[in-house]
Parts: sequence; structure tokens; C-alpha cells
Amino acid sequence: MKNDLFLRALKGEIVGRPPVWMMRQAGRYLPEFIAIREKYDFFTRCRTPELASEITVQPIRRFGMDAAILFSDILVIPQAMNIEVQMKPNFGPYLPNPIRNQKDVDAVIVPDIDETLGYVMEAIKVTKQMLNDEIPLIGFAGSPWTILCYCVQGQGSKTFDKAKEFCFTQPIAAHILLQKITDTTIAYLKEKVKAGVDVVQIFDSWGGMLSPVDYQEFSWKYINQIIEALKDDAPVIAFGKGCWFALEEMSNSNAAALGVDWTITPQIARKLTGNKITLQGNLDPTRLLSPPKEIKKLVTQMITDFGKDKYIVNLGHGILPNVPLDNVKAFIDAVKEYK
Amino acid sequence: MKNDLFLRALKGEIVGRPPVWMMRQAGRYLPEFIAIREKYDFFTRCRTPELASEITVQPIRRFGMDAAILFSDILVIPQAMNIEVQMKPNFGPYLPNPIRNQKDVDAVIVPDIDETLGYVMEAIKVTKQMLNDEIPLIGFAGSPWTILCYCVQGQGSKTFDKAKEFCFTQPIAAHILLQKITDTTIAYLKEKVKAGVDVVQIFDSWGGMLSPVDYQEFSWKYINQIIEALKDDAPVIAFGKGCWFALEEMSNSNAAALGVDWTITPQIARKLTGNKITLQGNLDPTRLLSPPKEIKKLVTQMITDFGKDKYIVNLGHGILPNVPLDNVKAFIDAVKEYK
Repeated sequence: MKNDLFLRALKGEIVGRPPVWMMRQAGRYLPEFIAIREKYDFFTRCRTPELASEITVQPIRRFGMDAAILFSDILVIPQAMNIEVQMKPNFGPYLPNPIRNQKDVDAVIVPDIDETLGYVMEAIKVTKQMLNDEIPLIGFAGSPWTILCYCVQGQGSKTFDKAKEFCFTQPIAAHILLQKITDTTIAYLKEKVKAGVDVVQIFDSWGGMLSPVDYQEFSWKYINQIIEALKDDAPVIAFGKGCWFALEEMSNSNAAALGVDWTITPQIARKLTGNKITLQGNLDPTRLLSPPKEIKKLVTQMITDFGKDKYIVNLGHGILPNVPLDNVKAFIDAVKEYK
Repeated sequence: MKNDLFLRALKGEIVGRPPVWMMRQAGRYLPEFIAIREKYDFFTRCRTPELASEITVQPIRRFGMDAAILFSDILVIPQAMNIEVQMKPNFGPYLPNPIRNQKDVDAVIVPDIDETLGYVMEAIKVTKQMLNDEIPLIGFAGSPWTILCYCVQGQGSKTFDKAKEFCFTQPIAAHILLQKITDTTIAYLKEKVKAGVDVVQIFDSWGGMLSPVDYQEFSWKYINQIIEALKDDAPVIAFGKGCWFALEEMSNSNAAALGVDWTITPQIARKLTGNKITLQGNLDPTRLLSPPKEIKKLVTQMITDFGKDKYIVNLGHGILPNVPLDNVKAFIDAVKEYK
């Protein structure tokens, strides 16, 4: 790997400056992405290796991040598990047959990965060729809890009340579903590593909707299974939005790094994780709407607060569609200019 | 006051059991509320003292909470400030002319409270008569930041990105708007206390969308102004959803109590607030969908974890519309049966 800054930060090695990438960096704020989106629908973009790989490298060409993340979606997993997933423009994911009882759970399969998700492995191989060992490639999956949220709610939600109601009133069925998603995710991520990804990240976008006790039972338990299953294959980054309350426990796992959102100071995040694990984050994505000069100041302060080692610069969640390109450049450049 | 448990808990006195009420207790889960809603639109319900007071006492009649909270809405404040607010069924608040620049801010007035919000004071007087000094009455307002969110975004949002963009790119205009909202809110709450409310609560529903640093600048600073202005008039409860990161600072204010949501354990909440202030919360509202037996267990455990003193039992956010009445009863009864 010509630029191994990201891998070294994941190992906790001393670096000259921290590596930088952005969640959702291959996405809607890029004109070259929008050009592709106008021609091909969402799942065509995911399923066509030439499109997925092109989208993956677009931000790298423009901004030179220290890691690429494969363009895909967390909902390819329920799709492979025999659950219909649609992506509606201006609405987001829509699952017309949400899972609401044991019978629905019984109909969910743990699929053969090659058969159902082979297109992801093809996209990885093409992307790896395009990246030419310049920088590492990240593969990702949603956490089992976050996937369950969509499978039960049937769409995005401010509260995911139906998903939580399912867990709280039918916990046995919920745990069977979570285990099926976990088994599928482990097999999927192992295949991704075999196909070439260097690092995997688990996105627990909705873990922060649970109380600390419920988070242990319905989310962390399964994320930790994935970490344990993958730890000898590739470094695992666990990102839980709003999961500050679990950081201490997460820091005792075999994850290589933990992602943190912007609602925690670097100082508290370091304190809760005992300064012993690499942290990734955590600029408020909306702060990329600040003037470039202020972005640079905020990023420099953030690196100083986290410390340059055991640290990966990132946003606290995905980049917003309305961020100007100059602002993204300021974010990336501030890291590269850090001394 | 015949039942002064709530006031005593706010003073930190030793009690036999903690008091209990529920955020949004006068609301959509009650059939008698739905019957009124079918006849009168939202703002008619707020503006007609006979309706607002009836709705306020409905949950007390049925369940016997230890405090009533006046039926109203946080958006009566921007309405009084000359900002049009509509309440669209199945959509929520809609502000057709959102505030996006200094000129818009200049057009916002700090109104005469009697002239614009006199109907709230009438509702308080009627409600106090109906309550007949049985239990205290809570009046409330949104935090200036939360009100700004709606005024700028123009509607509810998962990220309130436009509101944050406004603050981050036009901070001078944002602070002028926040101060106008603060001045109006202080005058409004002082009038409410004069009209008869015994306690006031400030709802910072969207404070948790800000980073700890931005929260200080755009939210807490103004909430604290309100607390300082009101502290000699009535006890003030400050509730910030997702604002765990500010609890330590908040506990050093002159608030009588702090509300906490369900994403923090009672133990951590006590630790962050140095065990020196009354806390209110924090059952996950979705947990009211659990079977009644489990609700009772969770409530009992919650009281044990917070401790019965310096504590007010509540949910971690507003009650959901789809909660069965038996489950609400289990929640309230568990507190009353606590030994």
C-alpha cells in the first residue's frame, strides 16, 4: 500500500498526521456522482461493478482522501435475505412487506452470499484494480439492529417505534431475526475481505435510539459477534451514532477503532475509551456549511483535541448533499496541512 | 396544595415516593382527547381556555398524576412574534415564511404578551380553578434554539440542517433572533407564573443536534438567561433531549431540576450532576409498549436507580400516540406503589 496512513492509524502506530476520509464521501454532493445518478437508478448503481467502482473512486480523484469506501448500501443485506427493498426518490428506503411477527421472521433466509451478493465482490475487485494499491478500501455493513429497524419499520423514521415495539413485545422473534442478520453479515463481510477490502466498518445508525440497557441486548451483542468473527480477517471499525453511553464497553472489544458522532467532545471520548483505542470522527456534518476558513480552524482544533495518533479524521455522520466542494477541500486540506 | 409531592421533589425534600407525570400526558393516546380533536383544530384547542383546560385535566382525571401540564404548544411563541405557523394534520408544524437572513430577523417582533398570548393566561386561570389546588400546574416554553430550529427550517426535520447552516454562516443574525426569542420567552413565562402556573419547564427538543461547543453558544446560553430571569418566580425544569454532554454544566445553574432522556443510565446522570440537583425522567417512551407487568418492573428499577429523592418520574420524551391506556396506568401505578 503506497499510502498506508489509515492502516497504521488503525494499528495505533505513531504517524506524522492522522488519515482522513468522510462517511458518504462517494455521494450526492459530487457533480460527477449526480451525473451518474441521472442515468442509473440506485440499485443499478450498486449492482453494476463498473458504476459502483467509478463512484467509489470519484472523491479520491478530486480530493485525495486516505481511504476509499465501496459505494453500496446497508440494505443490500435484507434484500439478499429475501426481503423486498425499494429505494424511492425523495423518500428513501421503502420495504413494502415489513416484518412484524414470528411467521415473517421464519420466512427470512440466511442466503448464499456468492449467489445473492456476488455483484459486491465483483465491484470490490474492479475497485481494487482502479485504486492500484494507492490507498486502502473499506467495505461496510449496517449493524443487525439498524437493519432490523428498516425491516420492521418498513421505512426511515424519527423514532423507529414499530421496530422497538417489535423488540419489546416479541423479543424471541426479534432475537431470531437479529441472529439471522448477524450470520448473513458475518458471511458477507468475510467474502468482502476475501474479495479485497482492507478494512470493514459497521454502521449502527440507530443504536442511539435505544436505552443503554436495551442497546446491550438488541445491538451491541450482535455487533460484537461480528467483530469477534472478523477480527482475524481485517480491522473492524464500529460506528454507533448516538452510542456515547456504550463507548467504554466498546473500547474493551476487539474492534480496531470506534467511530464517534459530534455530540461528544474529543476529550470525553478519549476518557470513556481509556485512550487505548483508535477513534474516528467527529465533525458535525452541518459544520461543513461553515466558511472554508472556519472549517480549517475547526479541523485543526479537532486533531489537537483528539491527538494526532490513534485517530482518523472524519465527520460525525455522513456528508450532507448541499455541501460546497470548496468546503470539502478545506476539510481534507486542513488534515494534510496539520503539523 | 393538597398534593405537593412534585413541589417537594423540586426542592429536594425527602419524600415517601417520587412524584410522577408524563411529557405530552395531555395528548393523542387519550380517547377523550381525540374526541375533542375531531371537533376543533389545533390552534382552536390552544386558544380556547375551556378546551385547553379540559384537555389539561383529562389525564389527571383518568390516572391521577402528581402534576398537570397546561395544554399548549411551543410554537405559540413564534406565532406571537409575527411568524406564521400552521399545524398541518399528518405533517406537523409548517412555517410558510421561514427566517433565512438578517432582513427576516429584523421583521421579527418582541410582542406584548397580554395582547398576543392573553389566551394562554386565561387558560391557566380556568385550569387552576378546575385543579382546585389538588396538584401543581406546569407551564412550558421551547428553548430559544428549538424555536429557532422551526423558524428557520420551516418544518420538522431529522437534521435541522437549514437551521444549523443559518447559525454557522450568519451567527450575528442568529444571535439577534435567539435574543428576541429569549426576551419574549422570559416575558411569557413571567406572565404565566403571574396567571397561576406553579412550575415552568423549558423543552430543548433539538439541543442534542448540536456539538457540545455549539450547544453552549446557540442553546444553553439562552436557556440559562431564562432560568436566571425566572428563578425567583417559580422553579424551572430544563429538559434537553440528547443533551447529556451538558448535564454537568446544567447542574451548576439555578434550574430546580433537569430532565434527562432515556439514552443515559440513572447512575451516569447522577454522576454527571454530582447528585446535587433533582432529575426528571427517563423511561424510553417506546417502552410503554411493553406488557404492563414489564413496565412496572422497569419503573421500579428506575426509581431504585435514580433514588426516590430529588427525583421526578417521567418518560425520557413525550408519550407516543399508540400507547394502550392500561400501559399508562401501569406506569403511574408502579410509582404510587413504590416502597
